[in-house]
Amino acid sequence: MRTSIATVCLSGTLEEKLTAIAAAGFDGVEIFENDLLASPLSPERIRDRAAELGLAIDLFQPFRDVEAVPEDLLARTLRRAEKKFAVMERLGADLMLVCSSVSPAALDDDALAAEQLRLLAERAAAHGIRIAYEALAWGRHVNTYDHAWRIVRQADHPALGICLDSFHILSRGSDPKGIEEIPGEKIFFLQLADAPLMAMDVLQWSRHYRCFPGQGGLDVAGLLEHVLRTGYEGPLSLEVFNDVFRQGDTARTAVDALRSLIALEEAAGRTDLPAPVVPTGFAFAELASTGPELPALLTELGFARTGRHHSKPVELWEQGDARIVLNSGLDATTGHPEPALAAIGLETSDPAASAGRARALLAPVLPRHRAVADAPLDAVAAPDSTELFFCRTEHPDHPSWTGDFTPRAASAAPAGITHIDHVALTQPRHHFDEASLFYRTVLGLRPHESLELADPYGLLRSRAVSGADGSVRLALNVAQIRPDSGPSGSLRQHIALHSRDIVATARRLWELGAPPLPIPGNYYDDLEARHELDPGLHRTLRELGLLYDQDDGGSFLHLYTATVGRVFFEVVQRIDGYQGYGAANAPVRLAAQHARVR
Amino acid sequence: MRTSIATVCLSGTLEEKLTAIAAAGFDGVEIFENDLLASPLSPERIRDRAAELGLAIDLFQPFRDVEAVPEDLLARTLRRAEKKFAVMERLGADLMLVCSSVSPAALDDDALAAEQLRLLAERAAAHGIRIAYEALAWGRHVNTYDHAWRIVRQADHPALGICLDSFHILSRGSDPKGIEEIPGEKIFFLQLADAPLMAMDVLQWSRHYRCFPGQGGLDVAGLLEHVLRTGYEGPLSLEVFNDVFRQGDTARTAVDALRSLIALEEAAGRTDLPAPVVPTGFAFAELASTGPELPALLTELGFARTGRHHSKPVELWEQGDARIVLNSGLDATTGHPEPALAAIGLETSDPAASAGRARALLAPVLPRHRAVADAPLDAVAAPDSTELFFCRTEHPDHPSWTGDFTPRAASAAPAGITHIDHVALTQPRHHFDEASLFYRTVLGLRPHESLELADPYGLLRSRAVSGADGSVRLALNVAQIRPDSGPSGSLRQHIALHSRDIVATARRLWELGAPPLPIPGNYYDDLEARHELDPGLHRTLRELGLLYDQDDGGSFLHLYTATVGRVFFEVVQRIDGYQGYGAANAPVRLAAQHARVR
Repeated sequence: MRTSIATVCLSGTLEEKLTAIAAAGFDGVEIFENDLLASPLSPERIRDRAAELGLAIDLFQPFRDVEAVPEDLLARTLRRAEKKFAVMERLGADLMLVCSSVSPAALDDDALAAEQLRLLAERAAAHGIRIAYEALAWGRHVNTYDHAWRIVRQADHPALGICLDSFHILSRGSDPKGIEEIPGEKIFFLQLADAPLMAMDVLQWSRHYRCFPGQGGLDVAGLLEHVLRTGYEGPLSLEVFNDVFRQGDTARTAVDALRSLIALEEAAGRTDLPAPVVPTGFAFAELASTGPELPALLTELGFARTGRHHSKPVELWEQGDARIVLNSGLDATTGHPEPALAAIGLETSDPAASAGRARALLAPVLPRHRAVADAPLDAVAAPDSTELFFCRTEHPDHPSWTGDFTPRAASAAPAGITHIDHVALTQPRHHFDEASLFYRTVLGLRPHESLELADPYGLLRSRAVSGADGSVRLALNVAQIRPDSGPSGSLRQHIALHSRDIVATARRLWELGAPPLPIPGNYYDDLEARHELDPGLHRTLRELGLLYDQDDGGSFLHLYTATVGRVFFEVVQRIDGYQGYGAANAPVRLAAQHARVR
Repeated sequence: MRTSIATVCLSGTLEEKLTAIAAAGFDGVEIFENDLLASPLSPERIRDRAAELGLAIDLFQPFRDVEAVPEDLLARTLRRAEKKFAVMERLGADLMLVCSSVSPAALDDDALAAEQLRLLAERAAAHGIRIAYEALAWGRHVNTYDHAWRIVRQADHPALGICLDSFHILSRGSDPKGIEEIPGEKIFFLQLADAPLMAMDVLQWSRHYRCFPGQGGLDVAGLLEHVLRTGYEGPLSLEVFNDVFRQGDTARTAVDALRSLIALEEAAGRTDLPAPVVPTGFAFAELASTGPELPALLTELGFARTGRHHSKPVELWEQGDARIVLNSGLDATTGHPEPALAAIGLETSDPAASAGRARALLAPVLPRHRAVADAPLDAVAAPDSTELFFCRTEHPDHPSWTGDFTPRAASAAPAGITHIDHVALTQPRHHFDEASLFYRTVLGLRPHESLELADPYGLLRSRAVSGADGSVRLALNVAQIRPDSGPSGSLRQHIALHSRDIVATARRLWELGAPPLPIPGNYYDDLEARHELDPGLHRTLRELGLLYDQDDGGSFLHLYTATVGRVFFEVVQRIDGYQGYGAANAPVRLAAQHARVR
């Protein structure tokens, strides 16, 4: 289907927006009038620029407060409309959005509304322009799509149809099924927006918190199915007012936007996108490593240096099924001047299909030279710039990346680590919604609840995404904290390693002089008050610096190492099917980490 | 009255918070348990630290989900309570806050609730501890203060009283008058918070948007009067959950907090604060000026260089009653490496009284050596670091700052400027609420509605404060925009000069080759559609680059100069009592300014 987007969705000048919209691959654009007014470009120049970029101007919006007003006001409205028709002709736009009136002057009179809209449509038609009438959720008298449709039907003019907006319909809890009663050719336009479920004033909700379909909690895909059953053939267009997007990078927001529509089309069965290949585990985590700290930390954690890359300054470290790649060839020129997580290898049954889907969903494909291995490795960049490699490790049907490493005799004493439990990535401040949409659509991971965790200097927003069986878990974090709250405070990433016996792992760390992050005694006093733990276990937790959590199913023990550059390790032990990430302990952990660096 | 504050109001570690709270001048503190848990300091150490700082620990909070539960749960609750009583004894705290239960296990049974709270109070009393029971606005069965009071009265134990919280009471729209029926000695604690009026879920509203009294829309002062009539003698304590304060500077948030309580006490008639001396005009605006740009701009605007300071590199420029001081002695060491607004002189009838009130409201008093004049000038620092001088210009009863300037022969041709209309100051990102409280309480200015204005790269929040007669107007702005959106984008300040004939002023600027900020033609097309302006006026506006607005009373013409460093000038003409600031034109102006610098 044709895709379109309102210029109000993006940050920047009108020219910057048009450029980004075309570069992302949209077919058309809704010109939001305020963007036009603030632009130094004439309507003719904007028309030419859109044409150069291959963008259709699908809609000019909004025109307000038209219907059901006393006669003298109507004359002023029509005068105003004629001026806007003239602008639209210069712009080459032939569809105008008219929102239902919010004016105190508007009367609750459908017949009058229909008559006046018909008059407006007649005037529009004389300019080759059509009118799409939309019910705002907070319209004074008309605030549901079925009411708007009744008026449009009554007006009965070929240049008058309706515009449906998923936010206005779903935010009020209207049943979208009734859409199917509208003839598709009378639906002149379809605007799509999602929003997180919030109990707040609908106008404020709409103006500040809308997001792209699939990023919120509204059933936009379900609504689309109803619309498609009418025979609607117009574009799918995004109209999102979002304070964060307003400040975001224009080009990447445009890509994020188009990704949401591609995924929405897939949900509606309208595309032949390659099916997701859900990853089945972590093949490896690659760290940019300068200096001796990370090798020392891995040794303390019981990892063995098992291989050396045959042509690059890269080492493989292993313990159980946990594989860490240390790359000392990543420096300032590749954006890793300090130890940081550079890449994640994801185990999939079909790396090429994984990469194909990622490409179809506009994930940036990475040049091959960055791959740690020379074996064919398909890679894309995640929203936080971490590189995602699709791997098939040591299966006879596929070359394995491990083949590029020359084995070394391993000598370390293992410490109970079995595999990578999860990886926590810090998202760029303005792209948290983008990240969860990316992992859901590109990798087929399931997003969990979004959490807000107290940091001594602000808040940490955190949302996990995981495969159905929990074999791949990612925690997506964004820190909203004071800029002066310590080095890398808002940039920390970590790798959580699962231990089959975290008590033994912790004792080993103490013995090696690398004890876990110190946890305050007050935490253990509170733990004793909150849970009736076995006194022996409680003593052990306190003695070793282990954190504890429990959920309906089971319990969770965890500890943290020191931070090296941007990276630290967590060691976790999941007992009896515990599903979380110890979020209740995050404030204590964050405070302890701040205390270490200040 | 004694003042106190919950540690959760501030950013930082518990130790940082205690230090800032004591430095601001509070008498006591509520220890928020999560701050204790995340602290490496033992309860004994915190007790000692508070004592060193002269802070009483007035409350330990919160203890949750106590009342009206089945027997087995009660036993667990009491076990948990005993652990917390032990912590409180170590901490030296003798008052515990118990919130009404939100647990699904809680029964709707007041008799049972009273019985179990009485039991808890008995246990507490054995440790010398008292219990303050508080109705949360979202409590499962108990969510109003009168309901909580009925239960406390029924429980009838000397160690059990209630805690009143202005947010929980006023957010639900409860009538606070009923508070007067509670004996003062049974009100064990009073927590105060304000909040902007918002139609949203009360729990979310409470957790993220509370603010200090006088910063929001709740009648906290009215509630306090009811409480005081009961004979309540405990502290006034602030409990504010605010995402912005969490990230703010700890010390200044603490000062802002105490200022709100001082003003609240004044409103309740409990202090002998000097009355506000509302400024009656702008004496001058002082600009840090390096280079020739500002003198050139002032000349173009028709200002004459009328005086030179007798001992400092400072010049006085005048036109009508508008006085601009250019100070070339302010450089990097004083924080003004580029042209910026450094100070405002405010005309008051009693500078010493103005300064006295500012001091009493904790405004930082500035050292005398910064004053442009050698005549006694009282000055304080505003929240954005602009210096506010209280002046009495050329009145025989007071030395005038102008006496320090040696007059010069003025030769410029004036351009119609009559006086400074308003000054727009950019507030530090996390201190917008602080700013409006500061100007309201310290200067007695009236805050107007808070506006959100679209910027191409984000949003500008703006709130005006003014004297009753409009002779002093300040616009307080905070830019929430992309950091890469151009030099000084988020730091711009401006001085708006009133012209008695802005058309003449504009023509002069054109003639001198310094035309106003270019305004897009699209703006004028829209203006023509929106207003039925006289065609001649419309042509003039377009030709000269003037912006237009109107309100119920009158109309408003304005223009902007180029920006020099952080500063630009606006020229305005208010016609027939127009009261606003042309906010409707702000998006067009902001876009035009971005276009100039990119």
